[in-house]
Amino acid sequence: MLVSGGLDSATVLAIAKSDGYLPHALTFDYGQRHNIELQAAKAVCASMDLPEPKLIRLDLRAVGGSALTDDIDVPKDEPDRPGIPVTYVPARNTLFLSYALAYAEVAGAHDIFIGVNAVDYSGYPDCRPEFVAAFERLANLATREGVEGRPIHIHAPLIELTKAEIIRRGSALGVDYALTHSCYDPVDGKACGRCDSCRLRRKGFEAAGVPDPTVYTE
Amino acid sequence: MLVSGGLDSATVLAIAKSDGYLPHALTFDYGQRHNIELQAAKAVCASMDLPEPKLIRLDLRAVGGSALTDDIDVPKDEPDRPGIPVTYVPARNTLFLSYALAYAEVAGAHDIFIGVNAVDYSGYPDCRPEFVAAFERLANLATREGVEGRPIHIHAPLIELTKAEIIRRGSALGVDYALTHSCYDPVDGKACGRCDSCRLRRKGFEAAGVPDPTVYTE
Repeated sequence: MLVSGGLDSATVLAIAKSDGYLPHALTFDYGQRHNIELQAAKAVCASMDLPEPKLIRLDLRAVGGSALTDDIDVPKDEPDRPGIPVTYVPARNTLFLSYALAYAEVAGAHDIFIGVNAVDYSGYPDCRPEFVAAFERLANLATREGVEGRPIHIHAPLIELTKAEIIRRGSALGVDYALTHSCYDPVDGKACGRCDSCRLRRKGFEAAGVPDPTVYTE
Repeated sequence: MLVSGGLDSATVLAIAKSDGYLPHALTFDYGQRHNIELQAAKAVCASMDLPEPKLIRLDLRAVGGSALTDDIDVPKDEPDRPGIPVTYVPARNTLFLSYALAYAEVAGAHDIFIGVNAVDYSGYPDCRPEFVAAFERLANLATREGVEGRPIHIHAPLIELTKAEIIRRGSALGVDYALTHSCYDPVDGKACGRCDSCRLRRKGFEAAGVPDPTVYTE
């Protein structure tokens, strides 16, 4: 399971656990400007009595091209920009799923979970249902397990849910959202409250009617 | 273009260059036991007046599961083993192509070249035409360029060629195969002559009627 330390992947961990899986978390250090994500991923796994996430380092800075890894300003207070946002990281979910596939193949696992969803999509091409389906197809052509007839499934249980639905689902499963981190541009460990990710999170808690445990700077 | 320092990717570089492309080589340090591959990749690019390969480090040892990255013995003198060989690296070409996709997207490139072929396949699931086609489909769903209607093509010009045909093609294009490296288990920088990769290479030169410049230890 791909785990970022954010709200969505924490919810997916809880869903998979309640469905009877024993999730093995993979988390990535890809030169993010906020190492706080990695700490959140560890705290979320610990809170669910799961093993510590396996950390894979990959240097997306060598590839470049995103406000999340380069020195591009994260946009604030701009809800209606058209097209793909500058915070899009090239081929990120393709890379993450490729590592998960390699790890699954070695571990003998047939189920890979990812927390992408339609709301987080907001212009990211690699968060769409057709992307997930295409990766599952690739996985079954690319691997020993797929070739030998033991298919690999890519699970994206949040893909059709709104942020509010995700939060309600996770709350019902006991997810402690205070441990999760969403902000693209935190200051002194606190969420900015203004980037796309903070805006989505805030509105999600409001719409869900669930108290938001996040400490925002404004 | 994915470049390993081997015979196949050297040939692909020459083909792409003769077709009018300006190849940008990507090479990977994935905890191989033989760093010599990386030196060969540099020498091959220099011999064709191409820029030095861009090196991406990825730790497949963290994932494990292959004789090429783990402490498993490389098989020798065993031409007829059935199934997928132990030298198969889990999801390797999926990972390599994912990085190439990220780099292409940032660079504004629409053509990715990979030197897989049917002979090298010999049981590797991620060297088959259907794998390449599935990755191309994924690439056009995963990226800004694909979504916005400027399709990405995955070129695998060797995929239907025998090793002898590859060598003849490359020789005609002036590839200096003495610079390339194929052996899975080199000793003091020399090819062992007995692993699967050496056996294929040797037989390829013989069948092509081209002198083999490789120095084998036996």
